[in-house]
Amino acid sequence: MRALVLADGRLRFDPRHPERHGAPGETRVDVTLAGVCATDLELARGYMGFAGVPGHEFVGVAREGPYAGRRVVGEINAACGHCERCARGMDRHCATRTVLGILGRDGAFAERLYLPQRNLSPVPDEMPDDVAVFVEPVAAALALGEAADVAPGARAAVVGDGKLGLLCAQALALSGARVTLLGRHERKLEIARRAGADARREVDAGATFPLVVDATGSSDGLARALALVEPRGTVVLKTTTRDAPKESLAKIVIDEIRVVGSRCGRFAPAIEALRAGRIDPRPLVDARLPLERGTEAFAKAGERGALKVLLQVSAA
Amino acid sequence: MRALVLADGRLRFDPRHPERHGAPGETRVDVTLAGVCATDLELARGYMGFAGVPGHEFVGVAREGPYAGRRVVGEINAACGHCERCARGMDRHCATRTVLGILGRDGAFAERLYLPQRNLSPVPDEMPDDVAVFVEPVAAALALGEAADVAPGARAAVVGDGKLGLLCAQALALSGARVTLLGRHERKLEIARRAGADARREVDAGATFPLVVDATGSSDGLARALALVEPRGTVVLKTTTRDAPKESLAKIVIDEIRVVGSRCGRFAPAIEALRAGRIDPRPLVDARLPLERGTEAFAKAGERGALKVLLQVSAA
Repeated sequence: MRALVLADGRLRFDPRHPERHGAPGETRVDVTLAGVCATDLELARGYMGFAGVPGHEFVGVAREGPYAGRRVVGEINAACGHCERCARGMDRHCATRTVLGILGRDGAFAERLYLPQRNLSPVPDEMPDDVAVFVEPVAAALALGEAADVAPGARAAVVGDGKLGLLCAQALALSGARVTLLGRHERKLEIARRAGADARREVDAGATFPLVVDATGSSDGLARALALVEPRGTVVLKTTTRDAPKESLAKIVIDEIRVVGSRCGRFAPAIEALRAGRIDPRPLVDARLPLERGTEAFAKAGERGALKVLLQVSAA
Repeated sequence: MRALVLADGRLRFDPRHPERHGAPGETRVDVTLAGVCATDLELARGYMGFAGVPGHEFVGVAREGPYAGRRVVGEINAACGHCERCARGMDRHCATRTVLGILGRDGAFAERLYLPQRNLSPVPDEMPDDVAVFVEPVAAALALGEAADVAPGARAAVVGDGKLGLLCAQALALSGARVTLLGRHERKLEIARRAGADARREVDAGATFPLVVDATGSSDGLARALALVEPRGTVVLKTTTRDAPKESLAKIVIDEIRVVGSRCGRFAPAIEALRAGRIDPRPLVDARLPLERGTEAFAKAGERGALKVLLQVSAA
């Protein structure tokens, strides 16, 4: 099958990649559209030591099981389903899980992928593919609400105007927070403003917030967030990076800050928010390229200031 | 007056240090006994850029106000008392606060100190000075309970067998937790065992805990704590250091960990726990030197494996 393959630290398009069939209980999905995420760029730089087919944001058509013939999206963590963590509902933290296109499981930048049937959710008929492909990152943004209490009217800041930062700003605004987004690119700040955020390049000197989200994707993001959070406040950390922070974390102790890591989120609220139009991801799309031009898509997604690059895997 | 003075990065004993009198509302305390804390050693290495008289763990005799003639201990954060944070009960985070012997205020390694009257608490008559001098660090250890829920029977690990680590282990045991303390010095592990902890040099491979306290005082402490905490677990950070962490913090995000900074605690529960003998700090005392030998006391406190060094400022 056609696929983008990461091997020996190099990404290439393979027109005849050997297909690995699914395990029992897994469902074949023919991928229609997939999104390139910052994590994919990190993987291509060696993060997690991943080799195989990357890609975890997708919409496709199920070819087996109860959704056969229907459009589906899929939760990316494939848990064992029977360990103590899975029993506690912490399947996204199952110790033996695989993660689509990230850990031990080929992903979405290919004609076909396999996921456990229970990971799949059908896409509402009225939702276009270029919205459905955002279910996974929107779920991750909405997971902010699990990591921190967001009271209506509360002030919150998001550091970083990348894809995740812009979605986090929308997710917080949806919870009724008064959102300030800090970014560097006028075009992106404008997207955040249209979503109701006070988007700017810097805050007034000394301004602090009870809640700050680090969505920079950079190893200096935590320090930037800590500089903005008030004593006893909360920093939600969304950034995963291989690099260690460059600054002391003493402020966490001195100001008794709460730093909460947040990774993935539940799909059902994300599907509903996108269906109802409460979050509109389409202004984030910068380009749409065919799978064959995948390496070009990665280069484009890695350019300074780039937003979402989509890969058209097969005709919609 | 006699005092230890930190100036230009050098600590020295000054037999005739000019005394700064207290501001209105402040009470003079004649210091009896003071403790050398890891933070004092950091200050002597340039942390916080402090110059003046260090020292913040003390017991003394109030010479003014309602406690005149009585033994007192003192909360080290001197807040303005009228800003928005003070109004919310966050006086330990008042933006214009001074901190005894740490920030903008001369401390306890001197014959006399001044603190706002409201910072002082009387010491129960039956409590000896060498117990009362531990009220401040015991309050800091008990503050763990504010930073994280400690359920009776819950498993918790403390990383670091220094003074703070040993007190944190006792504080957690007091809350009913099953405590594992990780340390490097047999003598200290034995102190922790006598307080009911499972004290050891390393945990079984793969062992994880829902709650881990970093009391290492070292910039690698957070990474060591993160290695021990289970997904969605809590790390309480007690370590303040000038150095940046040396490792990536990606695990905080991947495993959705909560890292909570914890600095000072309330005095009343600490006085009560010490009065009732529920925490016994005296096994932590390694040496007791007169104030005149303060530089020697700092050197001793900084030795590998050292525990608490006390400075006898005046006769009890």
